[in-house]
Amino acid sequence: MPLLTLLTDFGAADYYVAAVKGTVLRLAPGTTLVDLSHQVAPGDVDGAAFLLAGAAPAFPAGTVHLAVVDPGVGSGRAIVVLETAEALFVAPDNGLLTPFLDRGRAVRVERPDLYLSGPSDTFHGRDRFAPVAAALLRGGPIADLGPALAAPVRLAVTPPRRDGAALLGRVVHVDRFGNLVTDLPSEWLGPGPVEVDVQGHHTRHRARSYAELPTGEPGIVPGSLGTLELSLANADLARRWGVGRGARVRILLGRGAA
Amino acid sequence: MPLLTLLTDFGAADYYVAAVKGTVLRLAPGTTLVDLSHQVAPGDVDGAAFLLAGAAPAFPAGTVHLAVVDPGVGSGRAIVVLETAEALFVAPDNGLLTPFLDRGRAVRVERPDLYLSGPSDTFHGRDRFAPVAAALLRGGPIADLGPALAAPVRLAVTPPRRDGAALLGRVVHVDRFGNLVTDLPSEWLGPGPVEVDVQGHHTRHRARSYAELPTGEPGIVPGSLGTLELSLANADLARRWGVGRGARVRILLGRGAA
Amino acid sequence: MPLLTLLTDFGAADYYVAAVKGTVLRLAPGTTLVDLSHQVAPGDVDGAAFLLAGAAPAFPAGTVHLAVVDPGVGSGRAIVVLETAEALFVAPDNGLLTPFLDRGRAVRVERPDLYLSGPSDTFHGRDRFAPVAAALLRGGPIADLGPALAAPVRLAVTPPRRDGAALLGRVVHVDRFGNLVTDLPSEWLGPGPVEVDVQGHHTRHRARSYAELPTGEPGIVPGSLGTLELSLANADLARRWGVGRGARVRILLGRGAA
Repeated sequence: MPLLTLLTDFGAADYYVAAVKGTVLRLAPGTTLVDLSHQVAPGDVDGAAFLLAGAAPAFPAGTVHLAVVDPGVGSGRAIVVLETAEALFVAPDNGLLTPFLDRGRAVRVERPDLYLSGPSDTFHGRDRFAPVAAALLRGGPIADLGPALAAPVRLAVTPPRRDGAALLGRVVHVDRFGNLVTDLPSEWLGPGPVEVDVQGHHTRHRARSYAELPTGEPGIVPGSLGTLELSLANADLARRWGVGRGARVRILLGRGAA
Repeated sequence: MPLLTLLTDFGAADYYVAAVKGTVLRLAPGTTLVDLSHQVAPGDVDGAAFLLAGAAPAFPAGTVHLAVVDPGVGSGRAIVVLETAEALFVAPDNGLLTPFLDRGRAVRVERPDLYLSGPSDTFHGRDRFAPVAAALLRGGPIADLGPALAAPVRLAVTPPRRDGAALLGRVVHVDRFGNLVTDLPSEWLGPGPVEVDVQGHHTRHRARSYAELPTGEPGIVPGSLGTLELSLANADLARRWGVGRGARVRILLGRGAA
Repeated sequence: MPLLTLLTDFGAADYYVAAVKGTVLRLAPGTTLVDLSHQVAPGDVDGAAFLLAGAAPAFPAGTVHLAVVDPGVGSGRAIVVLETAEALFVAPDNGLLTPFLDRGRAVRVERPDLYLSGPSDTFHGRDRFAPVAAALLRGGPIADLGPALAAPVRLAVTPPRRDGAALLGRVVHVDRFGNLVTDLPSEWLGPGPVEVDVQGHHTRHRARSYAELPTGEPGIVPGSLGTLELSLANADLARRWGVGRGARVRILLGRGAA
């Protein structure tokens, strides 16, 4: 049974998500639809890439992931389809697929015959992306959609790094609970004492889960994506510290931290 | 496979939407459910009619659209079922189906035997609308549901008009991106210069898509419903101008606008 | 066809809900997924129990309800599976299933072989609850999941009571419309005059539905769960009165109220 996830910045109060879904169900009947999220901030391609990287690995092989966060709608930006060993992705060529680009091959969609003749150039989600996704959901090979795309757009990502006993990274996501998700791999932490600095806020607590942190005390926890999180059990650390996405995180390991 | 869309003002934080869905799946097993939106403002029948008009045309023929924005729940207002060439609609008889009333025939539902004996007269979505929708999803003809409804309630709509070189309309929707969707047909615009006035705010820019507008400059764009939109690329024009639904829009065409 | 509802405090802006759904669809293909709500306030087990009690009865027999509001994730709290005559429930053993515990038998899940080897102890929704739910959706009996749980955790509930002509209860939920849902059974009200006191706010109006209340006047109405609600037609009574969940409700019946 074909399976499609949808990730957009369309929100929940417009008709946009439903129009995309209706079009998919019209062109690829029987598709199972799963919302990834529609609450991406308008035009926030980085945030969408993070959510897609987090959710896609959970889905069955062959799932089609349609991601439309597309500030360039109506301009010359391409539509990209990416095939990896696990999944298919459809998105504007604006960096949204960055987390997956090295794992598969991409084509630039050149199939205006598939597009709906909508009344405008403002809603490619319905008029172009949905028909392209439907073509994949009907089982069509990606090679039929267009030529190989040699250099898809990539987001500029500053990788985390180790500098002696220091781990240097960033907050890449703040979740609903106020957890600060970092880009620092959990396995970099090691077993010893730590000292964490996030924009002048400090903690030396660490635990395996939020519930194991001392009550009311921030601490560092291995998170569900394999990276470290800064958290406060049953409270919102992002609000407490006034820290958001992009904040620099510095963790000092070992004796110097004790 | 039967397909049902759901449009309500129930929000996402109550059990109401789930109770409607559970009832439908109990009475019409195998139905595919698609949320249109549940974020209609409480009691906003006009807003719901707009969303339904936008989304319904995207769905496959035979789709059942259930729309419950029903400030008169428990009063004497009727339940209406409308059949058009493309779809079936179930809603309270309060004007919600106005955009489709001229395209089909309506019946007034008179089938108390279908209703659930709920403990109250406050949740017809679950106790009456869901069973009626389920009867349609099981394939029942609308004539079985009740007698023809000759004069269903209609929303008062002021149509847009042309007055010499001036187009006179209104903002009928503000979307998540801050686009001001008007009721002015895009084909009225013609090729020449324009001058737009919305409550004292002005622009002379026009483009085919948001991205083609000059950076930071409002402009007019043909929108995805076939009507004109006022927009600001990658920013919220509704907030910038402080303009909302109902605002009057005046567009001067041709030489007078140059 | 297996049917799963999902109730969490994960919100709509993270990848968490999608990761749970993807895992379920990977492990129990063909499952129909229905969102109950993901807008439970973080860690609000009482609120989640209320929503589950409201929605679950609407679903077909055999539905699996997965509820993950789990402030103790990663701690020693158990995972409980409950089987009633109508449904199956999967939740942390923290009281979330209180409304259903007396109607079925519970087991404590002890099947680490089912769990996914996630990178952390912070996302049991994906790594433990989803695989357990999938085992049930594939038709496995609950006895295979672990031993009987004799004393599952229960929420402390203060039952409403009658004291002579007075009904004494509480506001247990405030819905999107500002209705104050109480725990007082509607059948306690009787036919005569009433006087309602909620934290010093008073009304003597009563009706069968919101629409029948006098315009602009608060009143008491039998609600959709079989309990009384305080409401204001087409307006938000919770905001008007400044009253929230937990507020005490006192209703004086009969002559004393006249």
